Amino acid sequence: MLIRIGYELAFEVPRPTSMQLMLYVHPDQAGALRGPETIAVEPDLPVADFIDAFGNRAGRILAPAGSLRIRYDNVIDDPGRPDVPFKGQPLTPVHEMPPECWRFLLASRYCEVDRMSEVAWDLFGSTPESWERVQAVVDWVHGNVTFGYPFARPTKSACDVYLERQGVCRDFQHLAITFLRALNIPARYTTGFLGDIGVPASPSPMDFSAWAEVYIGGAWYPIDARHNQARIGRIVMARGRDAVDVALTTSFGATTLTQFTVWTEEIAAAAA
Amino acid sequence: MLIRIGYELAFEVPRPTSMQLMLYVHPDQAGALRGPETIAVEPDLPVADFIDAFGNRAGRILAPAGSLRIRYDNVIDDPGRPDVPFKGQPLTPVHEMPPECWRFLLASRYCEVDRMSEVAWDLFGSTPESWERVQAVVDWVHGNVTFGYPFARPTKSACDVYLERQGVCRDFQHLAITFLRALNIPARYTTGFLGDIGVPASPSPMDFSAWAEVYIGGAWYPIDARHNQARIGRIVMARGRDAVDVALTTSFGATTLTQFTVWTEEIAAAAA
Amino acid sequence: MLIRIGYELAFEVPRPTSMQLMLYVHPDQAGALRGPETIAVEPDLPVADFIDAFGNRAGRILAPAGSLRIRYDNVIDDPGRPDVPFKGQPLTPVHEMPPECWRFLLASRYCEVDRMSEVAWDLFGSTPESWERVQAVVDWVHGNVTFGYPFARPTKSACDVYLERQGVCRDFQHLAITFLRALNIPARYTTGFLGDIGVPASPSPMDFSAWAEVYIGGAWYPIDARHNQARIGRIVMARGRDAVDVALTTSFGATTLTQFTVWTEEIAAAAA
Amino acid sequence: MLIRIGYELAFEVPRPTSMQLMLYVHPDQAGALRGPETIAVEPDLPVADFIDAFGNRAGRILAPAGSLRIRYDNVIDDPGRPDVPFKGQPLTPVHEMPPECWRFLLASRYCEVDRMSEVAWDLFGSTPESWERVQAVVDWVHGNVTFGYPFARPTKSACDVYLERQGVCRDFQHLAITFLRALNIPARYTTGFLGDIGVPASPSPMDFSAWAEVYIGGAWYPIDARHNQARIGRIVMARGRDAVDVALTTSFGATTLTQFTVWTEEIAAAAA
Repeated sequence: MLIRIGYELAFEVPRPTSMQLMLYVHPDQAGALRGPETIAVEPDLPVADFIDAFGNRAGRILAPAGSLRIRYDNVIDDPGRPDVPFKGQPLTPVHEMPPECWRFLLASRYCEVDRMSEVAWDLFGSTPESWERVQAVVDWVHGNVTFGYPFARPTKSACDVYLERQGVCRDFQHLAITFLRALNIPARYTTGFLGDIGVPASPSPMDFSAWAEVYIGGAWYPIDARHNQARIGRIVMARGRDAVDVALTTSFGATTLTQFTVWTEEIAAAAA
Repeated sequence: MLIRIGYELAFEVPRPTSMQLMLYVHPDQAGALRGPETIAVEPDLPVADFIDAFGNRAGRILAPAGSLRIRYDNVIDDPGRPDVPFKGQPLTPVHEMPPECWRFLLASRYCEVDRMSEVAWDLFGSTPESWERVQAVVDWVHGNVTFGYPFARPTKSACDVYLERQGVCRDFQHLAITFLRALNIPARYTTGFLGDIGVPASPSPMDFSAWAEVYIGGAWYPIDARHNQARIGRIVMARGRDAVDVALTTSFGATTLTQFTVWTEEIAAAAA
Repeated sequence: MLIRIGYELAFEVPRPTSMQLMLYVHPDQAGALRGPETIAVEPDLPVADFIDAFGNRAGRILAPAGSLRIRYDNVIDDPGRPDVPFKGQPLTPVHEMPPECWRFLLASRYCEVDRMSEVAWDLFGSTPESWERVQAVVDWVHGNVTFGYPFARPTKSACDVYLERQGVCRDFQHLAITFLRALNIPARYTTGFLGDIGVPASPSPMDFSAWAEVYIGGAWYPIDARHNQARIGRIVMARGRDAVDVALTTSFGATTLTQFTVWTEEIAAAAA
Repeated sequence: MLIRIGYELAFEVPRPTSMQLMLYVHPDQAGALRGPETIAVEPDLPVADFIDAFGNRAGRILAPAGSLRIRYDNVIDDPGRPDVPFKGQPLTPVHEMPPECWRFLLASRYCEVDRMSEVAWDLFGSTPESWERVQAVVDWVHGNVTFGYPFARPTKSACDVYLERQGVCRDFQHLAITFLRALNIPARYTTGFLGDIGVPASPSPMDFSAWAEVYIGGAWYPIDARHNQARIGRIVMARGRDAVDVALTTSFGATTLTQFTVWTEEIAAAAA
């Protein structure tokens, strides 16, 4: 399945400002891209790339004062398979996990595992020690948190989401991730493109999406407490402990976002 | 200068429990050790080593039910030079920092950079854009926070320390690190051995110590808002974003610490 | 000066629900009303009045399932004098305050005096022990917090406002009140009608307003960290420790606000 | 039953400081005292009494610099009846409560009803709408929170207690009160003398105690999530929304507590 992906962002920059961009397709999936990966910047600026400590490809620019425009457009060949639950699969004991899992068991800025541990065991301690425990967490978060853009705020943590029961995409994932880690199940935060493929089109404007991944049965599987349904075409851009690690743009100084457009849509093979 | 370092820890373990140990000398300094690095465990268990995402050497054991004893004893050859302030050194602009610095500018569990940013700029925005800004942060934290063991609690964050003005070693470092990151100065949390060398002996029992490091002038320099004086013999064990990443032991299940002894003392060359 | 005041509120009530209304003019000012005080409720319901522990007049209804409409319209004769700062007036020592002041020195839900005390003394400890200290608090809050409706959230406390520097009317007042109490200056939260009299008309729809009062020189004086300018025609509806005590309507069950209109405008004497 | 009650407190006062004392027996029970109520202060100071907004008797002193000693000793004639659960008693609908109940349904500093409401309904929403719901709350808090003096901290709120599951007397009560209010059951915080009468003597030194009261069946009944057993001889000193309102001593300036002794013991009738 071919999926067209891209975005156009614009900023006003009052004075020269360093910006980090996590706006590439993740190296794990970049091999399936049909076109070269180019972030077009106006004015024309060099983008210095690097691979961060989570294996994400990031870019860095020094934006001059004035208007800044960032654009990307590409086509990716996706297997087009929906998420498949890993029913009955036993959880991996901590001592059998590879070392890379460790950091995804720990607390992070928006995932206060230390504070939420008792609640997690209250709610999920009697579920089976298998994929069904993961599913129970996803079901609970999906069923108990109400989605709404006005509920977003930059400092909102999993603990806030648990108490307030309201949030946006990232809030659903932060709460699920926190419960999972407290239950000794490695969970990482994932951002990327996720179009309305095989599901009714969302009435909201297209946006980047956040979901999560859990380590079970020797691999990482996507879960999504926001949608809680099998989806097709998750194109990963970045992974990390929580939203801190994978902010699509991080400005080291004040900037104002003036345009934000994202596209993610299946295209007919001929159109590619 | 030769420094004898070591520890003896004991735990009661109610049921088989996976434990992660960050109890080695950091690979950066391990070359100066006089003896082989061995963590002796009773009962005799294999310790599976790995290098984590921050470059720390960590070990992992599956502790059986019963008593557990962990012991280490070694001698390290330290240059014996005190910390030197880097007076007048300009801060590094974000776009000139190497990529490894990035994650040490971001918020983490106990360092809520996002919440403390306004306060940081209020307090330090008018200091010089050089080492003196770092020193101003260290001075402020040292001068405004009262040390006391009863003030420790596992969930205490930089924001709590700022408001409550009380804490232990790690709390001083978390607050300083948070201010520094908010000011776009990379700062990382460091644990290790720090004996009372060249300073009056502390009346408290010897403990591991926490300090911090800032990136300035192309390298990482130690700072210490707890002591705020030049010290000799900082033997690094682990570095990370905050205390989450470098807990000396992390148990994935309930364990009870029953003994805790640490030694760090200069020894005469002949005694080695 | 005659001021016409009133409101019309509508709710959808899914099942019979008890509601408390703080929608009268405060008994201290009710003597200046030109008409009788009647809260008209549709459907026609008895409103059981009582005076609460702060001296406010409150009403209580048992709303049946269905649509609920609450309407009030009246004219009040206001002296039309602007707020006057009490320049040079010394603060009242705690031991000279009347007992009624005590509770307005203590922490409350949205005013965490216990957590904000150190910050308050850092910021204002060197100001004169007079009205000028009050003014310094109002100036600081007014100058450092940005107003915006999207920044409102029901659980936001003074501490949040201090860290986030964003909020609505009530947030400005909560932060100022918290600083004042920490400085041993009694401060209470006040809600009421405040029209754009003698000032440019606000572009936002008319709303109820929140301000605060401080005890100094033997009386309570209005302060307003939101506007920080002398205003005319503050018609008090209720006073309390913070927004908890003076919510205009409190529903003991789920209800949905479907209409909210408030009016407060000077009228020509002949029009009354 | 005759119970001897009293205390001796000492403070060091660095400079003249206003102090509020809530150290009398509550007026509701003071009629049962055998001796006059006198708070003896050294140096000899006038104690200015007043009744606060909750009906508590409070005193106020202006302590001079130096040592301060406060002593009270009395005998009270207590009915000696244990707390009796009010089994099967229906909860009072909000619209049938007397107005005095209202403020004990609202959020306060340490009882964040607004944040804990969802959790309360999750945990207790399916219990009967009677005394059994109250008992379920008390049982839950008693069974899920661990008592320990090191867990005390002045800023700890119900929400913290819920997440951390550790605390002292006041923390148990704050959590229970918060759950109850969220469930529309009026609950107030109570401090007083509570000796080990009819129960095994506690190994800890005697202290003042905190419990709570709920409004049900037309009256206020004691509940105690800390002990969760019927007790004899609850001598009320003060009631309020939470610990803020009934601090035994409140100093408006720095003071240091240097002695703290409390006695509460049944005495033989002849000894009185």
